This record gives sequence, C-alpha cells and structure tokens, in this order.
Amino acid sequence: MKVSIIGATGYGGLELIRLLHQHSSVDIATLHSFSAQSETLANFYPHLKGLEASPLEKINPAEIIEKSDTVFIATPSGIAKDVALPYIDAGLNVIDLSGDFRLKDNQLYEKWYGKKAAPEDYLAKAEYGLAEFRDNELATFIANPGCYATATLLGLAPLVKKQLIDPTSIIVDAKSGISGAGKVPSKSTHFTETNENMTLYKMNSHQHIPEIMQQLTKWDKSIPAIQFSTSLIPITRGIFTTIYVKPKNPITQQELHQLYESTYEHASFVRIQAENTYPTVKQVTASNYCDIGLAYNEKTNVITIVSVIDNLVKGAAGQAIQNLNIMANFAESDGLGFIPVYP
Amino acid sequence: MKVSIIGATGYGGLELIRLLHQHSSVDIATLHSFSAQSETLANFYPHLKGLEASPLEKINPAEIIEKSDTVFIATPSGIAKDVALPYIDAGLNVIDLSGDFRLKDNQLYEKWYGKKAAPEDYLAKAEYGLAEFRDNELATFIANPGCYATATLLGLAPLVKKQLIDPTSIIVDAKSGISGAGKVPSKSTHFTETNENMTLYKMNSHQHIPEIMQQLTKWDKSIPAIQFSTSLIPITRGIFTTIYVKPKNPITQQELHQLYESTYEHASFVRIQAENTYPTVKQVTASNYCDIGLAYNEKTNVITIVSVIDNLVKGAAGQAIQNLNIMANFAESDGLGFIPVYP
Amino acid sequence: MKVSIIGATGYGGLELIRLLHQHSSVDIATLHSFSAQSETLANFYPHLKGLEASPLEKINPAEIIEKSDTVFIATPSGIAKDVALPYIDAGLNVIDLSGDFRLKDNQLYEKWYGKKAAPEDYLAKAEYGLAEFRDNELATFIANPGCYATATLLGLAPLVKKQLIDPTSIIVDAKSGISGAGKVPSKSTHFTETNENMTLYKMNSHQHIPEIMQQLTKWDKSIPAIQFSTSLIPITRGIFTTIYVKPKNPITQQELHQLYESTYEHASFVRIQAENTYPTVKQVTASNYCDIGLAYNEKTNVITIVSVIDNLVKGAAGQAIQNLNIMANFAESDGLGFIPVYP
Amino acid sequence: MKVSIIGATGYGGLELIRLLHQHSSVDIATLHSFSAQSETLANFYPHLKGLEASPLEKINPAEIIEKSDTVFIATPSGIAKDVALPYIDAGLNVIDLSGDFRLKDNQLYEKWYGKKAAPEDYLAKAEYGLAEFRDNELATFIANPGCYATATLLGLAPLVKKQLIDPTSIIVDAKSGISGAGKVPSKSTHFTETNENMTLYKMNSHQHIPEIMQQLTKWDKSIPAIQFSTSLIPITRGIFTTIYVKPKNPITQQELHQLYESTYEHASFVRIQAENTYPTVKQVTASNYCDIGLAYNEKTNVITIVSVIDNLVKGAAGQAIQNLNIMANFAESDGLGFIPVYP
Repeated sequence: MKVSIIGATGYGGLELIRLLHQHSSVDIATLHSFSAQSETLANFYPHLKGLEASPLEKINPAEIIEKSDTVFIATPSGIAKDVALPYIDAGLNVIDLSGDFRLKDNQLYEKWYGKKAAPEDYLAKAEYGLAEFRDNELATFIANPGCYATATLLGLAPLVKKQLIDPTSIIVDAKSGISGAGKVPSKSTHFTETNENMTLYKMNSHQHIPEIMQQLTKWDKSIPAIQFSTSLIPITRGIFTTIYVKPKNPITQQELHQLYESTYEHASFVRIQAENTYPTVKQVTASNYCDIGLAYNEKTNVITIVSVIDNLVKGAAGQAIQNLNIMANFAESDGLGFIPVYP
Repeated sequence: MKVSIIGATGYGGLELIRLLHQHSSVDIATLHSFSAQSETLANFYPHLKGLEASPLEKINPAEIIEKSDTVFIATPSGIAKDVALPYIDAGLNVIDLSGDFRLKDNQLYEKWYGKKAAPEDYLAKAEYGLAEFRDNELATFIANPGCYATATLLGLAPLVKKQLIDPTSIIVDAKSGISGAGKVPSKSTHFTETNENMTLYKMNSHQHIPEIMQQLTKWDKSIPAIQFSTSLIPITRGIFTTIYVKPKNPITQQELHQLYESTYEHASFVRIQAENTYPTVKQVTASNYCDIGLAYNEKTNVITIVSVIDNLVKGAAGQAIQNLNIMANFAESDGLGFIPVYP
Repeated sequence: MKVSIIGATGYGGLELIRLLHQHSSVDIATLHSFSAQSETLANFYPHLKGLEASPLEKINPAEIIEKSDTVFIATPSGIAKDVALPYIDAGLNVIDLSGDFRLKDNQLYEKWYGKKAAPEDYLAKAEYGLAEFRDNELATFIANPGCYATATLLGLAPLVKKQLIDPTSIIVDAKSGISGAGKVPSKSTHFTETNENMTLYKMNSHQHIPEIMQQLTKWDKSIPAIQFSTSLIPITRGIFTTIYVKPKNPITQQELHQLYESTYEHASFVRIQAENTYPTVKQVTASNYCDIGLAYNEKTNVITIVSVIDNLVKGAAGQAIQNLNIMANFAESDGLGFIPVYP
Repeated sequence: MKVSIIGATGYGGLELIRLLHQHSSVDIATLHSFSAQSETLANFYPHLKGLEASPLEKINPAEIIEKSDTVFIATPSGIAKDVALPYIDAGLNVIDLSGDFRLKDNQLYEKWYGKKAAPEDYLAKAEYGLAEFRDNELATFIANPGCYATATLLGLAPLVKKQLIDPTSIIVDAKSGISGAGKVPSKSTHFTETNENMTLYKMNSHQHIPEIMQQLTKWDKSIPAIQFSTSLIPITRGIFTTIYVKPKNPITQQELHQLYESTYEHASFVRIQAENTYPTVKQVTASNYCDIGLAYNEKTNVITIVSVIDNLVKGAAGQAIQNLNIMANFAESDGLGFIPVYP
C-alpha cells in the first residue's frame, strides 16, 4: 500500500514515518509540508539522515491521488478540514490526526476550536477512530482521536458502557508531556519554564472535552458533563490520566478488574495491570500500548482509574496506523509491534 | 537563640541549615547525625564547603540541653519519638519534623506507620504546627506537619472551616518531586526509573492521610474520609496538589476567591492567585510560600483547588522555622524572606 | 537461530530483548538471571507485560547448549569470565557484553578492574567486536566493546589508522547518561543528586581506557597515552564524546570530512554530519547509529571530533546484535533498523 | 544606596532583584523594561507576587539620575551601549551585564557580535569586572564579564598569571544550562529539543572568546589562541567547564593545589576542591561560588581544571553585585551570602 503524509515535519508526521518504517505492507510514496518544500526531511531532522529519501513536496492533490492509496493528514486543526477534502472525494483512505473531523456537531467545533468547522456532509462521513471501539471497521475516512481523549475514553469505557457509574461524578486529572504542544517554541514549552515545573494550563477548557463527551454520551446518555483539567509535566512523551468516578453500587476490587479484563480481552494494545499496581508513563514510551490500573476505595466509594499512553503513538500516529490496519485488514500490530523503550 | 539540629545530614536537616544561615536571631550551636560523627558536613555535602564550621557530634542530651535553647529533630519517623524526649522534659523548645508526634491517637500511628507510637502523654503535649492555623501560639513543643498535609490542609481550610462542602466529596490528587523520598537511594528514586516518568506510588495509603483527617475533622466533624493518591513527578523539589470538592451550595468564582483572600489576609506565606490563574510548582521553589489557585465549574458543581509548595521548605524546614518564629515572637519571615529561585 | 540471554534483567539484557523482538531470524530460546528465577520478566518490568513468555530460568549450561545456537552474556564484569566458558568450549556463538574478554593482557585487566582475569587462552580466542573494524568476521566468540570505547574509537579511527595525528595530543572529554551506571540504585544515580547536575566521576581512571589504548595502538603504535575523563549528564540514554587532537600536518575542513566519509562509506550505522554541523545525543536515541561531527581550527591546529551513540544500543546490545549479524551472515541491520525515537 | 535596574524582566534582571532583596545596604529605586511598562513584574512572574512593589517604568534618564546612585544594565548586547551612556556621563555607578563594554577593541566587538560597537572613549573607561582580579577597585563603571568567561578565567588564572603553561595548549570544553540562552523561546530552548539531549552549539565561535583572550593575554602575552567549544546540557542553571592545558614543566598534584589555594586565599567565592575531587554544577546552584577541581596526569602531561558556576549568579547578577560591593566598600558577600540550594 502506498501512503502520503501531509504535515510530515510536525511531531505527528515524524512519528508516522518512524512507525511506518517497520510496517510490512506500507510504503511511503510522498511527503508534504507547508513550511518546507524541495528539501529532504533530514535537513531539519538529523535523526532521519540516511533513512528517508522522499523530498518534501508541494501538495498536488491530483498527483497524490495518482500515487497513493492512503493519505495521513498530520496538520494542525483548522488546516486539515480543507486539505483532506480532495482525497475523501476521490475515495482514498484518509486518516486525519487533527481535531477537524472528530465532532459531529459543527457548532461545538466552532465553540471549542474558535475556527470555522468542516462542511457538515464530511463531518457526517467521518468515523471517530477510537480503535478499540470502532463503530464501523470498514470506514475509510477516519477522524483519529485526540491524545487526552484516547487515554480518558479507554480508561472509562468499561464502566460507562455498562452505565455503572454516577453520571455526575466523573473527574479527570490529566497530565501530559511537553511534546503534546508540538514543535513550535513558546513560553509554555521553553525549557527553563517547564523543567523542574508542573503547570495546570487548561481548567475545564481543553478542546478534547467535547469529543470525550460525544463518545461518553453514546455509551451513557445520562452523563451531563465531566470535570477535566490538563497539566504539563516535565517529560517529552506521555500522558498520565487519573480518573475518579463513583459507582452507582458498591463494587469489589475483583469485579472491577474482571470488568476491565473482559472488556479488553481481545484488545492487543490495552494492558490491565494487576491489582494494587498502577502503570507508569515510562512503561509505554514509544509504543502503542494503553496501560490501565484500577482501585476501589470502600470508604469513599470512589473508583480510581489510571491510564497511560505515549501521546505521539497511541495518542496520535500509532492509533492512526492501528486504524489503517483495521481498515485494510492488515494484522492489527503491523508497524506497531515495538517493545516500549525502557529505561 | 542557640539551636541544635539532630539529623543534620538528611534533606530536612540540610534545609534547616540553609535557611537558618539567613536568620537574624538564631545561631546553630551543634549539629548531630546518626550516620556520621566527628566530621564536618562539608565532607558529605560539598555545597557547604567553607560555610559550616560545627562538626557532626554524638548526641549527648545533657550537653545539648546546656548549649541550646531549641532543638530541631529532623530524623526519620520512628526515631524522633525516642530522641526528642529529654529536650521536652528539660523544657527546651522542640520542633520535630517527623511524623512521630502528629497524631493524637497512638493506635492510628501504629496502624499507618507500622511502628510503636510515642508515649501518650508526650502526644498530648505536642502542638500540630500548621503555622497558619495554630491553636496555641505559645506552645513550645511542635509536631511539624507533613509536606502533603501542609499543601492539602492549606488548600482546603477556608472551605472546610466554614463547612461549605459536601463532606463526602473530597478528592486529592497529589504529586511530589523526588526529594520527598529523602537521600537514601532506592529503585523509586533511581534516575533512570524516575526521569521521563510519572508514577502513582500510594493509592489511599499514604501516612499523611490520618493527620489530614485529624485536622479536617477538627474543622468539620462530618467529613468521613478523603480520597488521596500520591504520585512522583520528575522534579527535585515541589508538591503540586489538585483538590476536587463539591460545595453544598453553588458558589460564584468571586465568592470563592473572596473566601480565600479573607482567610489568608494576614498569612504572609500564602498567596491566592488571581482568577483563572493557577500556580506552578516552580514559582515557590526554595521559598516558604504556599500558592493557591481556584476554579468553580457550574456544570459539574466542582471546585478545583491547586496548591503548591516546596516540600523541603513550607513542607518541612521552612514551616519549622516559621513555627519557631511564632513561638519565640520573632518576625514571622525571619530566615524565610527569600525570593523563590526562578528560573 | 535460537539464542539465550544470561543476565536478562539488567539494562543490557533488556535492550537485547527489545531489539531481538524485531529480528527476522532470531528467536529467544531462554532467559536467565542471577537475581531472579522461575518468574517472568514482566513481574519486574511492566513494560514487557504480554510480550515475553519465557520465564527466567536457572543457568543450566547443558540445557542452554542443547536449546541454543548463540549465547549473549549481559552480566557485570567479573561474572562473565566464568559464566561464558562452557558455551565457548561447546562451540556456540558467544557474545559477551562485559569487559571480561576485551583485554588481551590479563595483568592490565586485573589492574583496571581490580578482579581476577579470565583464563589466558580464552582471552586469546576472543575477537574484539568493534563492528566496523572487526579483524575476523568469522569469529564466533566476541568481546563486545565498552560504550565509551565504541564512541571514542569510531571517532578517532579514520585519523589514527592513517597515523595523521600527533600521538601525544589525544584528549577525550566523554559524557554519559545515567543508564550507563546500570539498574542498581546508588548515590550517583539518585535522582535528586543527578538531576540538574553534571559530575565528572572518573579522571583518567575509567576502565575503558585500556581497551581504547589496545585498539588505538594496533592502528598507531606511537600513541603513548590518552587523556580521558568521564562525566555524568542528566539524561537516561546517550554518550556524547568531544575529542581533541592535533594533526601532524595542517588539514583542511574538506579533507577531514572526505577522510571520514570515505572511511565509513560502507558503514551503515555511522553517519558523518555535514560541515559545521555537530550531532546531538538525541538524534541517535534508541538506535544503533554513531553520528560524528568534525571541525578543524587553523588558529590552534586542533581537530575537534564529536561522536554520539546510545550507550545501550550501539554501546552495548545493538552492537552485540550487529556482531551477531556479521558472524551469522544476516543482513547487518536486521533487528537494528529502527528510526531513532525523536523527539 | 538606591539602585535602578534597566532590563528587569530578563533573567539577569530577575536575579539582581532576587539577590538585592537580601542586601543590607541597597534599595531598589526603580525597575525598567523595554518590553513592558506601567505594570508590576508579578504580572509576568508570579514568583514575585507580593514581593516587589515598584512598577515597571519607562526609561527616563533624568529621573533615574535623580532617584538612583547606581544603575544595573541587564539588557541584551547591542542595547546597553546606548542605554548606559547618560548614567556614565552623570557619574553614577554603572554596572553593565551585557557584552557591550567588555572589549577594548571596538573592531573585535564588531567582528564577534556583528553589531556596531560602543563609542571608544566609553570602552576606555570601562573596568572589566572579573571580581577576583579587578585592576581598579575604585572604578565606578564596570563591564561585568560573560558567564563562560568567568568560569574559564577563574579556572586558568593561577597558571596563566605565572606563565606556567604551554601557550598553545589551552582547550576549553564548556557546557551550559539552558537559562544562558535567556527568556525568549527558540528551537534551541524548546523543551522537547533540549530535554534528554546534549548539543554542541558553538565551535570556536562563541562571543566570549575575545574577552577571554583579552584577559589571558594581559596575564601572558604569548598565548596566541584558545580552543573553545560550548554545549548545552539539559539543566536550567549552571556552567561546567573542563579545561585542558599542558604545563611547560612537569608539576606535582600537590604543587598544583598549592598554587590555586594560595591564589584564591582571600577570595571568599572561589573554593578549591580537595585532591581527586571535582565540583558538580549543583553544589553552587543559586549561589555566587566558583568551585574548582584540579588534576595532573603524568602520562600525558595534561592538567585538567574543572570549574563550575551558576551562570545567572557568579556568571551574571551575583558577580555584578560583588563588583558593586567592591566599588562601594560594602562587605564583599553582602546580598550574596546564600548557601547553595541543595538538593
């Protein structure tokens, strides 16, 4: 299969290149970037020296449609909504890593992103690609979920799908490494500001909240809202979410584990930790795993769920390839079979 | 005033030395360590070269009582309970930084610490030294609070003292830098394990929970329990607590800020952040400040409180000196008037 | 090909497992550890959960010889010299990652390592496995080079092999990440001591000096000694060496680059940087590359060579697999074709 | 004494404020910034909340001359050369932290800084403020040395002043924390690029080279050039320089230490480490110390000198205050008597 990557110079694009390099059935046909053309990626990213021959090319849809079967869109939100259209129209497989096609409700998009939404008929076509819970495994146009959304939804799915929790009790305390902010330097990614620091940067205002709500309410209509704050911790890769919910009825630690084990029985990238064990961010670094730990506190009737992912892999490029594998009927772990890099 | 420090080679002891060096009314008379004697601290800690003349001496209570007015105990829990007694008996000022005299109920101590408790009559004498909320400003025997307890209690005090919150709703998501684990190397402080990582290490089982409960229930008897997890983040100094509570009645953002501003009006080391602003760990590094940010979410009826401290200063040595200043009627900020080290 | 790994729970062993997982022609037959038996690695290393089925077994040489074609020894120095012997005797491929078989002169070993050396006849049999400069590509018993030695020798080889430099002028300023110290916690790997710090820990006394000298003097007998200091920098993986030498005769920047380009023309894992460009540690993370940058200063007649590797890959497990690939006539990059993990 | 700080919002200015806060004889009269006016610093830097009342004001020289005795210029190079002039003319004490007045030769400035130099008569008036080796202790116009220059010159002074070394042998391998790059975000200070990384960013091209040469040749005219590279390490504060020189004649380790001990006998901020001991960056954090370690290698006839400073203190604001203390006849350690922040 031939693929093109639009937005190849961002962190999402780089990670697609890294992972696809190991994929047995995919070749990268063309690479594209808005910020650079007619140069090789290795000019900007010396780690790629000797590895990646394709130069960065202008985006010529006709040419891409001719050369490729699949297009990954790894541009920022607000750009993908225009860039993606020709390939969808042409019937190519399209996997968009941005937020532009995740929300079915265009007004919600405009409220949370502060930008014009994609055309409604395209929004309707897009399949929300939470890989473990896809509605339509044959869909060829995928809105790949946000990193926080992935960690949060995989953490909540088993309980919410069975409507086991008090719908007003969901609190998500999410922490992210700095790569989540992308490659453009800013005050909040400046080493001297972020190193030896922790910063709560969005209080109930992160743009992943509406896609989380959209999915949660598919599973349990009674959920009115969630409490959701995001903080930066001084690591490069990784998301660590601590989720607090109250079950409608008391539950044992064992029942809780069984529920999660059975829900993810066939999910090769979700690993439920043993009782009294909580995952660390580092145990999934550079891999497509989502690791989940669970606790129930009888005294407070609170379930704590800890879920960790690598934001650039399971939270972006890895899940995108997992979605491609599902869509193309490749082995689910093709290009993703890495052991996490540890230590 | 002459002071002795027992446990001078631990991080708490070192920080006492650093801060007292700037104190206008205190001289260090003697330094003591169980692990080293007849040597100078600079042999172990080159940052002290040329600064600290006192050698490390054996603990001779008679001599300490003769030479000093005040004794700081900076040993681990389980040791202080024996070491402190002669100085209490002799009527010296005693400030214990360990957990040994914080809990009035000796059975609670034995359950949470897994060690024999201090004698009951000494427990009865000890004043819990949460500096902004001391019961008895004349007390001369202080059980200095734990680092997590300080950040949590200062964050909750204004709401809990006025009994404004649903007593079953308290959730504390606490994160700490690695220095909280002390100077003894272990797997959980190994650089390669902690760097680029985040780890939830105690789920509702941290030994600071009972002292938090003891103080909270003094303010509001109806609180049955709290949800409390602690995680390590890869920084050296600092505690970042995110606290979630539900108010009994809706509250405005403005009322919330006014409540905190008025509660801490005369507290020179507590700084309430402006609306929509949350403190970062780094803005208090190496200082005695506790900075607090606040948010109220109408949709979920959740108040989020973020409180940050330097665990070695406000969470240990700094608060100990603040307690000394209160007790001795020194200016409250003597020895503590540092601007945080930034960046 | 079936392989066994002895010392599977150390960082070298873990990295062998990570890399061999991608190798097309190798299966791990058995895993062994001195510190643990009858358990799975995932009990100690949660990043391996679901990945590695082999339990940790006792070291039974007869059984290993029966089950495996190749044995990797990833134990500390001083242990390998005994452990390796049965497999060498039995004619298996043996690749030792420790320092035990690198030095031909057993007295030198005993001086620098402070331990009894391996038997002389085994020392004589061992091939020093600097992969780009192997003497004997058919050798089946490999002493895999040290991490500092690899970065230093690859940096110096082109100039020294042609005897172009003043033999008394070599100065190596080497810096390493903390994983080089292994998995056992100690003061020098304690997060609070190493984070935000840099420490020169061995001044002309590192045990890799004799193997560097052994190889350099093979290339140029006139080199009497090198200046060699090693420092720790607060990163997990990576070695950054800055090497200073004076050429016998002035050289142009262009000649210098051509010399290195031509020397490494067929070396797929050595990448010479463009003029005025120096490699960063991060551009080789988790990969088998050694990247080299070069400068010549006319004013001082000094050549500066910067070479970087990932100490656990090219400096240990990766080079070991590269040596296996050479020996077994596999493609040189089998199991090693990773794009570096970036950012 | 009343002082004004021009450039108060940069890292140098912030550090002046932090240190002067502890100075017994200095009050900050006015604060100035080009980037912000009519606001308080705490709006930008929450660590200063409650501490610093002076608003940021426009630069009105007449007013500053009226209100202040001393002006610190903490602007970037290229700006100071204009800004400083009125205060020099008015006879105020002026301490410039930039590079604008360090080089006596204006052509050298223009070559290395790529900017127009300050007027020659002002260059002639400026005293190069290497505090331990001031020519004129009464000078009231100080060009405060660069951070790398300070660490390098204090490391070399004892040997070079006595002309004991081969003048062609000086090699300086200098490493810096990221705060040296200032507060403006850029690719080279982006967390994801610098964290877990080390980068050599200037090869014999750093603008501190000419001031180092200017001072070294004052001490030993025969020095023709130095080899000088600068690298970034992932820490916030600190410079770690490793300096290699060849003595003209062999020297013993003991003689070497005696030479340094005696040179710095009366220097309260230079601490010579014991034999076989090398300073770490962290042992001087947030303090004005320069710590120096020494080794002589008989085999290679190389002396290695390790010198460490906090780039923002001894390498900038601290040395500036030390220069003020010398000039004003204050105690040399006034405002600088901090114990380093450790750990």
